[in-house]
Amino acid sequence: MNTSELLLTNAVVLTMDIDLNKFDPGAVVITGSQIVAVGPALEIESQYPNAPRINCDGKVLMPGLINAHTHVPMTLLRGLADDLRLDVWLLGYMMPVEREFVSPDFVRLGTRLACAEMIRSGVTCFADMYYFEEDIAETTAKVGMRAVCAQSVLKFTTPDARFYEESLALAHDFIERWKGHELIVPSVAPHAVYTCTPEILRASAELARKFDVPLHTHISETAGEVENMRKEQGMPVVPYLKKQGLLEAKVLAAHCVHIDEGEIRTLLHAGAGVAHNPSSNLKLASGVAPVKRMLDLGLNVGIGTDGPASNNDLDMFEEMRLAAFLAKGISGDPTALPAATVVTMATRLGANALHIGDITGSLEPGKRADLIIVDHSQLHNSPRFYHDHNSIYAQLVYAGKASDVTDVMVNGKWLMQNRALCTLDEKEIMEYSQDYARRIDFFLINREQSILSKLIAIGGALEEESFEIQAKVPLVDCQPIFEALLKPEVEILRRRHYRQFDTYFTFEDPKQGRLRYREDDFIDENGDVTNVRARLTLIGMASEYKFPQRVLLSRSRFLAQATQTLRFYREYFKPDRELEIEKDRQRFLVHFKNIEFYINIDTVNKPQLGYFLEVKSRTWSRTDAEQKSRLVTELIGFLGANPEDNISDEYIDILENIPVPDPSKPMTRPTA
Amino acid sequence: MNTSELLLTNAVVLTMDIDLNKFDPGAVVITGSQIVAVGPALEIESQYPNAPRINCDGKVLMPGLINAHTHVPMTLLRGLADDLRLDVWLLGYMMPVEREFVSPDFVRLGTRLACAEMIRSGVTCFADMYYFEEDIAETTAKVGMRAVCAQSVLKFTTPDARFYEESLALAHDFIERWKGHELIVPSVAPHAVYTCTPEILRASAELARKFDVPLHTHISETAGEVENMRKEQGMPVVPYLKKQGLLEAKVLAAHCVHIDEGEIRTLLHAGAGVAHNPSSNLKLASGVAPVKRMLDLGLNVGIGTDGPASNNDLDMFEEMRLAAFLAKGISGDPTALPAATVVTMATRLGANALHIGDITGSLEPGKRADLIIVDHSQLHNSPRFYHDHNSIYAQLVYAGKASDVTDVMVNGKWLMQNRALCTLDEKEIMEYSQDYARRIDFFLINREQSILSKLIAIGGALEEESFEIQAKVPLVDCQPIFEALLKPEVEILRRRHYRQFDTYFTFEDPKQGRLRYREDDFIDENGDVTNVRARLTLIGMASEYKFPQRVLLSRSRFLAQATQTLRFYREYFKPDRELEIEKDRQRFLVHFKNIEFYINIDTVNKPQLGYFLEVKSRTWSRTDAEQKSRLVTELIGFLGANPEDNISDEYIDILENIPVPDPSKPMTRPTA
Repeated sequence: MNTSELLLTNAVVLTMDIDLNKFDPGAVVITGSQIVAVGPALEIESQYPNAPRINCDGKVLMPGLINAHTHVPMTLLRGLADDLRLDVWLLGYMMPVEREFVSPDFVRLGTRLACAEMIRSGVTCFADMYYFEEDIAETTAKVGMRAVCAQSVLKFTTPDARFYEESLALAHDFIERWKGHELIVPSVAPHAVYTCTPEILRASAELARKFDVPLHTHISETAGEVENMRKEQGMPVVPYLKKQGLLEAKVLAAHCVHIDEGEIRTLLHAGAGVAHNPSSNLKLASGVAPVKRMLDLGLNVGIGTDGPASNNDLDMFEEMRLAAFLAKGISGDPTALPAATVVTMATRLGANALHIGDITGSLEPGKRADLIIVDHSQLHNSPRFYHDHNSIYAQLVYAGKASDVTDVMVNGKWLMQNRALCTLDEKEIMEYSQDYARRIDFFLINREQSILSKLIAIGGALEEESFEIQAKVPLVDCQPIFEALLKPEVEILRRRHYRQFDTYFTFEDPKQGRLRYREDDFIDENGDVTNVRARLTLIGMASEYKFPQRVLLSRSRFLAQATQTLRFYREYFKPDRELEIEKDRQRFLVHFKNIEFYINIDTVNKPQLGYFLEVKSRTWSRTDAEQKSRLVTELIGFLGANPEDNISDEYIDILENIPVPDPSKPMTRPTA
Repeated sequence: MNTSELLLTNAVVLTMDIDLNKFDPGAVVITGSQIVAVGPALEIESQYPNAPRINCDGKVLMPGLINAHTHVPMTLLRGLADDLRLDVWLLGYMMPVEREFVSPDFVRLGTRLACAEMIRSGVTCFADMYYFEEDIAETTAKVGMRAVCAQSVLKFTTPDARFYEESLALAHDFIERWKGHELIVPSVAPHAVYTCTPEILRASAELARKFDVPLHTHISETAGEVENMRKEQGMPVVPYLKKQGLLEAKVLAAHCVHIDEGEIRTLLHAGAGVAHNPSSNLKLASGVAPVKRMLDLGLNVGIGTDGPASNNDLDMFEEMRLAAFLAKGISGDPTALPAATVVTMATRLGANALHIGDITGSLEPGKRADLIIVDHSQLHNSPRFYHDHNSIYAQLVYAGKASDVTDVMVNGKWLMQNRALCTLDEKEIMEYSQDYARRIDFFLINREQSILSKLIAIGGALEEESFEIQAKVPLVDCQPIFEALLKPEVEILRRRHYRQFDTYFTFEDPKQGRLRYREDDFIDENGDVTNVRARLTLIGMASEYKFPQRVLLSRSRFLAQATQTLRFYREYFKPDRELEIEKDRQRFLVHFKNIEFYINIDTVNKPQLGYFLEVKSRTWSRTDAEQKSRLVTELIGFLGANPEDNISDEYIDILENIPVPDPSKPMTRPTA
């Protein structure tokens, strides 16, 4: 007799295996971390007469639920902001708060809170995607849950990395260290097509293939994402990802709300899994995924809660119920996604989608002992009918609640017994979590008076995360530059000419940033104004990184169409100071040594600062920034200006640094 | 000091009044059944220094939730059948089981089970519609909940009435007896346009107006209902109801899934309330109601669970969450139905929709003390943010659960304290409920072998509840009948000629009914066959009511297109006996004295029974049946046949009663 043997008996055993075998009364035998027998209670009891027994009192014994897509530390941002436009929610609340608060301590606490909530609702395994993922993995392993933990990679600066190369390095080291762990499957998560460069997609796929681990990403969550992809790349998201080699990895694709039949087949052919997130997709108004079609074609579709900031909980019972309801209501077919199918999605298909179907997702000999006990004889699930073989699944999906889960075991170890958590101190977690909420509240209440929140309040907030190499040199004469631009070494892709009238509002607290009201008058070849556009831009304080001779500027910009008059904005934002700049700008988009650069030839008339050459290039990575920094120097020299004259200030900085500005008086041009 | 005074303090008080006033910490004072003060805790405490106090420990104190549409006894049918086509679910399961089991005992037990579940999830008031409604009202009053109880009226035979006149009499007496009760508002419920005659609609509206009580009905639940109404009446449902005078009553309209802008305005103008049932509408695949538009236009829209057989629970927290999610997901606008609006729908707007907004729905001095205490500091609702005034509503809607409700008071009396029910014995209710489930299971398992379930299994089940006056007389010659039909007293609306080939399957147990495979060969003026149609009809045993000379037949028929061969059906249904009838039928739809009648002139060739005149008319009420019975006699005489020759048997009955049928041999025609 194996000392670690355990017999769970007198249960309604739902194996969720391929034939949906059910034993009532049934029993399951566990040795160590593994299931060794499943079957009718009497038969199993007679085969294991000496195993210690637990009587399940007629409750349901089934595989633990698998939360196929989430961002667990976001429990700490639950209810932070709701009922908002997606951009306002994401850019106005989630991202600023994440930038300010997300740290290893934050993700560890958020993970513990999430694990406690998930264990309480019968989840034994989840697929996560966030920052500081190794801390999440370590915390999860300590709690005793199973998880596929994916380190996020984005082209933007994230809480755990300035450049994507750093994120990729984090992912590489994490995967190397954790590969083969008994509870954690390490993974990499290129966040989404619209937040990743092609290089990130390719490097992530290579990394996942090198270590044979899953790759977790968001695919076609919103219609806008697909529209942009079609506009920019002439194809929807899945073919584009395939082109970047992403589908050669073992992909777990979250959302897939807006994918077509061809894309479903491509994912199927690639062996990808899908995570369906009905609550999040409705709450953020993203749409309804074609789940029935995906299942009909044979895709492994699991169910996920998504992050608790867009849900706002981690309750897989709610998610199962909604998945069934939504498929019926939207298709007009009440037989769509019957209860047994939904429970299969939340267990076996979910495990397959996470690419760990060989070790979990059903109660079968040889698989790990990841199981839950559910009391389906509660008042809200009374009475119970037995004439139909499928009634038990309907009871779980349509009338079951997370609070019906009484016991949870992962990898052969109890994490909850009789509604008491075994490996977590809930009271402590809740206290620490409330401390974070208090600090975040304080941060946001302070910001309430901010320019950004005022901009959001009047409908602005389209964010542009800019990350650019920039150089500016004063000129005595523009003519040589125009002549140099005609040389064959430079290819002009686009040319524009306009007059720009900028009014800057500045504020006492420089952290508020500056608000620019800009009127662009577009000039045609005859010098006539063809079009006028007015925009508001809130420009955050720049973070600067020094490179040889050049400056890499990273700053956030929030844009809004200026639909009101300048006077309105003056009264609304109440600036401390107001500065005006007028200039004539000739703008060229060029290729130089196969790299895109913007070249601005400016004549600043108010104040009379004179002529300037500005060269800019967008970048996302450190190595790329270094290369472009060298090329900018070369390009300035090629255009006949002196790269040594570089000034890092903006015109507004120059203007602001003049003690008593008098725009009516001509000013001497600053020299480098 | 009033001895029945009670001060609830140290709570987050959500008044849900018109300004959404909130007091944190706040207090509420109750005297007897009434709220006498609401405000900031310190202020109220100093005003009522001697009142006995209950410390709410910072929990939420708010109006009880109002379940705006349900059928409470259907808790006993929860999970009876799921994931089925609507007609199969309704006609194959719900209606047969209701016919067999619904009784005063059934509705009393079902009501207790529902009340227990609703109190546990924070519901203090509900709007019900079912049979034996007075028993439901009495049980509810005994439990101590508030309810608008509506006695159903349908044109079909129901568990509590053979004719609608009986239902209306039940409703009248019930309303008369209960009008003015402190907890129960009695009401009448003409079920829906498709189950009510215009007379029922008019009589119900008159009854509701006479006693000034609400009228509860289903409106435009499915697209099919609206399509049929447009086809038959040339208008959608709401204008038709208005035409019948229904909107002159205080209407509570359940569903309103498929109503247009004009109909919304009509309901608004009529002061009608609406009950939105998101779970049921999705689960039965009915569609998504235009809730945002209704609210924008100013309608009082409450939230309901519908009956627990199509939900499958009575959890208003789930319903609130789904209402918010669905409005966002379907409109593509994440700001649609924000949390505060949804809580308002579930409280104040719900009370208004039930036409009892003057006494409940918000915490205001003068209203009844219907309130709940909710612990929003559970793990699944941690942490909590305070920077936004609306966070508290989002916490309740997006992360709150029914199990967070700790205390419930209705009309000043505690129904639940610290999660323990005060007026109900849950254990006993659950045991009795399971007894019912066992009996229903037994009934259905027996029926599994039935012809009906086999018919359903192959896709049939469109039910026709027929309720008709029928007379049949043998004829020596048909010619005089045809001549009489040309007289001006008869207006021929439609004429058809066909040959019918019927094969009847009969079974040992006569309760199974008879299955008829009928081939109709349509004949044109030249005697050529223009079209052939084959149908299966399962004809239940008839209930007969005797009238002078005539028979009123009530029987259920289940129809199905016969897409398979007769041989297939023979093997599939395994009849005990098979009988064939062939006849030539000339069928006339006529107006006689402004009433529609069907006249069939049959020549039965196999067996050779000879000529028959059949006169039929559909009816729904007893008085109508009596009148039509007299007219049938008159019409038969007018057509030149002898009404005294009437035989009540069908051809198949005549055939079956012949001991050894030999269809090859000519048979003598039976005489009356």
